[in-house]
Amino acid sequence: MKPLLMINFKTYEAGTGENALRIAKIADEVAHEMGINMAIAVQSVDIMRISHEVDIPVFSQHMDPIGFGSHTGWVLPQGLKEAGASGTLLNHSEHQLDISEIEKCIDITNRIGLKTVACASDPKIAEALSVLGPDYIAVEPPELISGNISISEARPEIITNTINLVKDIDRSIPVLVGAGVKTRSDVSKAIELGADGVLLASGVMKAKKPRAAILELSKGLK
Amino acid sequence: MKPLLMINFKTYEAGTGENALRIAKIADEVAHEMGINMAIAVQSVDIMRISHEVDIPVFSQHMDPIGFGSHTGWVLPQGLKEAGASGTLLNHSEHQLDISEIEKCIDITNRIGLKTVACASDPKIAEALSVLGPDYIAVEPPELISGNISISEARPEIITNTINLVKDIDRSIPVLVGAGVKTRSDVSKAIELGADGVLLASGVMKAKKPRAAILELSKGLK
Amino acid sequence: MKPLLMINFKTYEAGTGENALRIAKIADEVAHEMGINMAIAVQSVDIMRISHEVDIPVFSQHMDPIGFGSHTGWVLPQGLKEAGASGTLLNHSEHQLDISEIEKCIDITNRIGLKTVACASDPKIAEALSVLGPDYIAVEPPELISGNISISEARPEIITNTINLVKDIDRSIPVLVGAGVKTRSDVSKAIELGADGVLLASGVMKAKKPRAAILELSKGLK
Amino acid sequence: MKPLLMINFKTYEAGTGENALRIAKIADEVAHEMGINMAIAVQSVDIMRISHEVDIPVFSQHMDPIGFGSHTGWVLPQGLKEAGASGTLLNHSEHQLDISEIEKCIDITNRIGLKTVACASDPKIAEALSVLGPDYIAVEPPELISGNISISEARPEIITNTINLVKDIDRSIPVLVGAGVKTRSDVSKAIELGADGVLLASGVMKAKKPRAAILELSKGLK
Repeated sequence: MKPLLMINFKTYEAGTGENALRIAKIADEVAHEMGINMAIAVQSVDIMRISHEVDIPVFSQHMDPIGFGSHTGWVLPQGLKEAGASGTLLNHSEHQLDISEIEKCIDITNRIGLKTVACASDPKIAEALSVLGPDYIAVEPPELISGNISISEARPEIITNTINLVKDIDRSIPVLVGAGVKTRSDVSKAIELGADGVLLASGVMKAKKPRAAILELSKGLK
Repeated sequence: MKPLLMINFKTYEAGTGENALRIAKIADEVAHEMGINMAIAVQSVDIMRISHEVDIPVFSQHMDPIGFGSHTGWVLPQGLKEAGASGTLLNHSEHQLDISEIEKCIDITNRIGLKTVACASDPKIAEALSVLGPDYIAVEPPELISGNISISEARPEIITNTINLVKDIDRSIPVLVGAGVKTRSDVSKAIELGADGVLLASGVMKAKKPRAAILELSKGLK
Repeated sequence: MKPLLMINFKTYEAGTGENALRIAKIADEVAHEMGINMAIAVQSVDIMRISHEVDIPVFSQHMDPIGFGSHTGWVLPQGLKEAGASGTLLNHSEHQLDISEIEKCIDITNRIGLKTVACASDPKIAEALSVLGPDYIAVEPPELISGNISISEARPEIITNTINLVKDIDRSIPVLVGAGVKTRSDVSKAIELGADGVLLASGVMKAKKPRAAILELSKGLK
Repeated sequence: MKPLLMINFKTYEAGTGENALRIAKIADEVAHEMGINMAIAVQSVDIMRISHEVDIPVFSQHMDPIGFGSHTGWVLPQGLKEAGASGTLLNHSEHQLDISEIEKCIDITNRIGLKTVACASDPKIAEALSVLGPDYIAVEPPELISGNISISEARPEIITNTINLVKDIDRSIPVLVGAGVKTRSDVSKAIELGADGVLLASGVMKAKKPRAAILELSKGLK
């Protein structure tokens, strides 16, 4: 797999509504220009419009383990699929799930054709989640999320440990790493350590110049 | 206030994606034809498209008490607003909230200009919620939701009690009633008992002929 | 009602196991010496032993809205009752509940003979909860909990507003106030403002000399 | 390890207060008479008294991933330890946890000297949880819990699959199996299939003659 740059828009102001559309288009353009593998995870209200306007895969930030029926206000997998989502983050540290919910979500996405990025806060949880067969594992130490020091700088051993443990369970699962990733060298170092990609948010969402930020991060991927 | 017919699409298959758009348009047409006050509560993925295609107010089914920032996968009030939502259901029996979360949601919606329909399972909870100042109260006894007997038939005293208790706290809060509402007479009886409208889901979502169902329910409103 | 001093042991080290028993006995002694109305809210593991060793009422810190049956690991009201609890805190800001759960808990406690202290983070929520008929309302602004400035000093208007709003709904519900309450004058000021008692935790749990602290607070009650 | 019979008292009436003490004593007596390995998981209010009255290990049914401090109403690991608990169930299907909470609980119990029984609803989840290093894994298909057909009869392949998957991750983790286990042959069949013990509840809690039930189940263990 070509390394992946995945941008989580969270509920940042820059990642909401018209702003989200604008950054999504920038990401799409940079992905084409640079010939790199990019994906974005946006708020559910924004999935439909953005997925119609960009080529790169658009993910949901969350999904609930439900089917059609009486589930007022929950995030329906089929609804994401119809809206044009390619997949979803699962168990982000800001939105965790019971382990049986994660399993149900993965079962559902396999059936209806969505990809899953199961998020883990440390290597052991990454290993445990890889047992459940998600399409990607992303490891993000919560204490570094939104911070100024990247996982690549501060905790490179988390990257290598996660990769080792996950690949031991299932070689085919790509491992993304994240938390504090902001610079080209944060990205390139992660890739050098064996990561299959990076998952990041504030590095783009809080950047004064999102295009410059995405471009810079993309260069680290090559 | 003119009586209101509010349709909750839940996550029914008929209420998802293209199907949701189709029924939203039907609802919009019937509202115009009949000259009645109608609103719909749809899944967050569907809000933006539907709100651009219909004139009737489009509500979210849920909202989280958050602001811009790091809240991966939660439903941002500002995101709903930008997507074109007029408001949101809160505390539906299928998606309940802590009481302090309900208060925060009402505060946020007041600030950014969204309407709230606070859902209660019985008259006492309706009374308690009315203290928090939502724009509407909806009472739905959970044991009758999705069932075959309507609140109007089975528990008319819940309607009158709720109205009395809520109006005692704040005369200006309209009271919607729901659960099992399927026929013209379910609606008209609720209105006769003093309700300001009805909230329903399966009566339309599970109807073989949604247009006929909405039309029939609308007649009960007059 | 004689003013009440209620001490929440939380999960402080001083409030756990043998330490909890020791402070409970001190509280009991001071209550007798001073002739004041005192109660304690302890961890569920400690209720049975402590309630056998002291005369003052022993409350649980939480309860789940369940009955006998298959509810592994939840706090059964009947279990609290049998263990000797006099009642329970409900909806503490560190352990909030859906509004319908609060209602169910109050119904259950009324049936089986336990008292409830419904906790609110502000006057409006206190008013809303008083609709549900708890035995006591306690108001504690979360931003002052465990802090150094008391509600009596920092936000006396929260005390008076809460009392006015709650008594307007039901004159018979005693109103406790808390957050940052540490000194005799914090207590006496709350009582002067019309409170029926105080709810506090760190003022005793973190005190170097718990007996001195309880004695001092008790004097404020008179 | 000698096969283990673990009885979950849940919140059954027979498993609460005086009744709980009575059945705990019966279990203790039968364990001695039969020379078998038995343990019980009781409500937190009952742990202290029961652990003082019996020799067999007394477990909690749940624990929260917290330390000393401000955690009103949550189940403190240190509190369980001081009350005499030997360990705790974690993630029972009636009380599930985020995967990172399970990890934190296991870390805490390792530090303070409590045993953990991590509960899984199927073999894959059992495998995933075994990565986190609990002291025991228990697999219980939720659809069979409290039912009339045992896992041994209805789904023996769940037993063997779980054992294979767990032992592949860590040979040293004993695997308990449960759900619908009521008879001597349910137990003996589970042991024959390789289980290290059984976890059951209603088979004892709903039995008219608890002593006879425990005796019968114990015979299956030999």
